[in-house]
Amino acid sequence: MEIEHSGVSAQPTTKTEARKRILSGMQPTGTGALHLGNLEGALRTWVRLQDEYDMFCFVADWHALTTRYHEPEQIRKACLQVAADYIAAGIDPKKTTIFLQSQVKQHAELHLLLSMITPLGWLERVPSFKEKRELMQEKGEGDESISYGLLGYPVLMTADILLYRAHAVPVGKDQAAHLEICREIARRFNRLYGEVFPEPQALIGEETGVVPGLDGRKMSKSYDNCIYIADDADTVARKIMNAFTTPTKIRKTDPGVPEQCAVCQLRKLYDPEGYRVSWEEDRAGRRGCVQNKRELIDILNAYLEPMRARRQELLADPGALERILADGAERARDFAEQTMRLVRAALHFS
Amino acid sequence: MEIEHSGVSAQPTTKTEARKRILSGMQPTGTGALHLGNLEGALRTWVRLQDEYDMFCFVADWHALTTRYHEPEQIRKACLQVAADYIAAGIDPKKTTIFLQSQVKQHAELHLLLSMITPLGWLERVPSFKEKRELMQEKGEGDESISYGLLGYPVLMTADILLYRAHAVPVGKDQAAHLEICREIARRFNRLYGEVFPEPQALIGEETGVVPGLDGRKMSKSYDNCIYIADDADTVARKIMNAFTTPTKIRKTDPGVPEQCAVCQLRKLYDPEGYRVSWEEDRAGRRGCVQNKRELIDILNAYLEPMRARRQELLADPGALERILADGAERARDFAEQTMRLVRAALHFS
Repeated sequence: MEIEHSGVSAQPTTKTEARKRILSGMQPTGTGALHLGNLEGALRTWVRLQDEYDMFCFVADWHALTTRYHEPEQIRKACLQVAADYIAAGIDPKKTTIFLQSQVKQHAELHLLLSMITPLGWLERVPSFKEKRELMQEKGEGDESISYGLLGYPVLMTADILLYRAHAVPVGKDQAAHLEICREIARRFNRLYGEVFPEPQALIGEETGVVPGLDGRKMSKSYDNCIYIADDADTVARKIMNAFTTPTKIRKTDPGVPEQCAVCQLRKLYDPEGYRVSWEEDRAGRRGCVQNKRELIDILNAYLEPMRARRQELLADPGALERILADGAERARDFAEQTMRLVRAALHFS
Repeated sequence: MEIEHSGVSAQPTTKTEARKRILSGMQPTGTGALHLGNLEGALRTWVRLQDEYDMFCFVADWHALTTRYHEPEQIRKACLQVAADYIAAGIDPKKTTIFLQSQVKQHAELHLLLSMITPLGWLERVPSFKEKRELMQEKGEGDESISYGLLGYPVLMTADILLYRAHAVPVGKDQAAHLEICREIARRFNRLYGEVFPEPQALIGEETGVVPGLDGRKMSKSYDNCIYIADDADTVARKIMNAFTTPTKIRKTDPGVPEQCAVCQLRKLYDPEGYRVSWEEDRAGRRGCVQNKRELIDILNAYLEPMRARRQELLADPGALERILADGAERARDFAEQTMRLVRAALHFS
């Protein structure tokens, strides 16, 4: 798989030349609130990319049904949280088309057509499907919890990307492989019906490194170790006060091991200059964990406060947020319908 | 599975009471031309039912892609042939909503949503899928020819039916089992999200018996033993002159065995009174096969001529036929969109 990386800043941006398109998006998992891992691992990159590309940025609500079909109402509520976080993080609805997947029905039409040319074997061999299937079987959730749509997840993802004839998709290093099936389906379509889709490239963002969670493991909803963009100042304080530090440091004068301390790791990420002094003092047993925590709380709250405020503003007026999404959906539909006209013409279908 | 049979003529037909809805449809296989087997086995029943029910009658062009994704242009051409045959056989566009599946995008949206609640195991166990998979593997067509969409065939079929909240579906006796998966998906949807869909009943038509083909086997495209509604008088004559007769009857005076003679079998079907005398003479060696064939040719041509004429008229003005289908699609979309509003509301999706 080709990785287009250096090309990020080499895209044409003049007004006479059409800009390239990218698609970005996330599933509304859980309550939909996004955490620092999502922020640093994805949203920050998207914010930067929206100035160089025409970006379509969606909330993948239909995708969420692949595993959470029994709670659609929660999914719908989570969508507003995700959209608010997108905008709070700096995705600008004036530059970027922000929308909910389910409000652009063309995703479903393209999904159906692509389902006809996607070999079953390709999907059965996708490692993440095999893992999910095994996990669900281990949990004893039984046969009924694995749906046809779960197997078809990559087909819907492919439809999402190809519908905007995206030239690239920003992905984390570990997700690059997921794009390969999309590229294969695009090639198969073009070979069968004529050239309609560019083969989307994986756009690997600058590595910020993994964001550590409160327990030192990778920050992840499934570990319940997250700080959310939505967390208020007190919640951030409480979470940091309970975060893991060097296990062998009992007293203030015990030497710390910052590499084993979640608080020191977060400090390094959010105070990339100042952290050095605090780490030295920690190693030397000249500062305690409580001081470390208090300072991190201030740093994090200062960082999060503007996003938090913007987020609250957005959610205080859900009507306005819905209008932003409705406007985004309209723009997305316009483009998507253009693509579907090309697709239908290639198939001689009306 | 409950079979609603005696209920056919017991449906409310008064204007004050809403009429029940049925969905009927066929795939545009091959060139799309329908044969006497389709006519007697399905179309005749539909023609009768359209006076008792609100009927949605579609050409399943998206379905055809499950196995013929490599020739979409032929599928699209075949659609017009099927639609012409529907109307020629007596389906009245004023009474019945006749349309192409691909022109009502809601089929794709409902298909996607149902894919999320259809357990994979249900589909993997469908006998017709297992047979197709085995057949394709035997033919050495390899893994790539079995698509995700082929596995999902029953999900799309279910979407077709539920989109019109059909109370019943006219099916042949051998297809009744196909409806069971649709009923199961409908029940699962209603249980998960609230009552939206009636459970469609199989409407088993009066048995006309199997229509014999020119070689005495069941008339079927795959046996190449068909008389098509589209066949002109000369073609019918040529085909009947070459049809199988009693194998042991060499000379005119040899006794015939009408039960083993395709010509006699067709005569019985299309001349339900007069055939008796001809069969007696045949058994007694008092008439030859040529006489039998000539008489059958006249009977069949008299039967087919009005349909053939109507068909030619329709295909001579493809624009008018396209307008009938566009009008049907509009009516179908209106109803389908009402259903999708109920579905989206049940899921709290917009």
